[in-house]
Amino acid sequence: MKKLANSSVELHPLIAQRWSPRSFDGAAELSVPDLTALIEAARWAPSSNNSQPWRFVIARRGDVHFAKLVDTMAGFNKLWAPKASALVFVLANTTNDDGTPRVAALYDAGLAASLLTVEAAHRGLVVHQIGGFDQAQAMSDFDLPATLTPVVILAIGKQAPAEALEDATLLEREIAERVRKPLDDLIVGGSL
Amino acid sequence: MKKLANSSVELHPLIAQRWSPRSFDGAAELSVPDLTALIEAARWAPSSNNSQPWRFVIARRGDVHFAKLVDTMAGFNKLWAPKASALVFVLANTTNDDGTPRVAALYDAGLAASLLTVEAAHRGLVVHQIGGFDQAQAMSDFDLPATLTPVVILAIGKQAPAEALEDATLLEREIAERVRKPLDDLIVGGSL
Repeated sequence: MKKLANSSVELHPLIAQRWSPRSFDGAAELSVPDLTALIEAARWAPSSNNSQPWRFVIARRGDVHFAKLVDTMAGFNKLWAPKASALVFVLANTTNDDGTPRVAALYDAGLAASLLTVEAAHRGLVVHQIGGFDQAQAMSDFDLPATLTPVVILAIGKQAPAEALEDATLLEREIAERVRKPLDDLIVGGSL
Repeated sequence: MKKLANSSVELHPLIAQRWSPRSFDGAAELSVPDLTALIEAARWAPSSNNSQPWRFVIARRGDVHFAKLVDTMAGFNKLWAPKASALVFVLANTTNDDGTPRVAALYDAGLAASLLTVEAAHRGLVVHQIGGFDQAQAMSDFDLPATLTPVVILAIGKQAPAEALEDATLLEREIAERVRKPLDDLIVGGSL
């Protein structure tokens, strides 16, 4: 199923068609070139002073990293995310070399992850971002330094029909209309 | 001039071709549909719990908001940014309705701004993100509430030849090779 963005002007198809389903094809595998392209798309994002603060833990369904990441997930995420082909745990290096906070790091990580999702859409893949996971457990499981801040886990794979979701609540969310605030609510000064 | 991303696998052209020039065509104007599409692209980004924390101040070259934003800029930015067709001041609503911090807001603002840059590339426009500006001055000038956190100013417009930059340092930066950390340096667990 597709759920096009209901925008007031036409957007590039990769932006209009991008959304975040939870119904993944649990048999699909992600090729090395596809997964490489996703990380490359993130790698070439812009960042404050070209600091490139984004970091990634890469996991594929069936490997030990994947199981660890699923284990950190909260509630409903544990039901659907195991069918993703890959999980990418995104972190941001929020500390400058001199120990001061790198204030733009989280924003920059968002810039990078967003390009990853566009490249995924281009390759016929879908991405669902997961904020509901035990960050402390994930940091400990992968023995990651305190200079990195855990951000999100990206579930990446091939979309399956909505009906493949067995849980009724998840199915309801999957087929619900995509909604956004009115455009005007986002503009706090000036006008289009 | 173009500066393609030097990626190890081929990326979608809008991602490969996207970069952040400083040489803008000071005569080009941004149409209402183009500017609307950029904000719409941001609007349809994903966000934590669909909270959509991104907010924008919109300014066009020649209007009072534009002049105010240029006035907040530091150093070299004041030299080139005035030739942009529009400036979009990006903010994030970093406070939940119950007063607690909305921790994903800066990351989400990055997700949104990145889709804006992709839509811009699709429309033959370029974007350069500016972190070097007086945030307190900008917040005061636009009388913005403390629930919003200032993030970045996006300079948006038509690219001009590099040589249009009169300052030697800016010209040098404009023609310099685009560089990124090696792919492996970004991966802190698992592998491609």
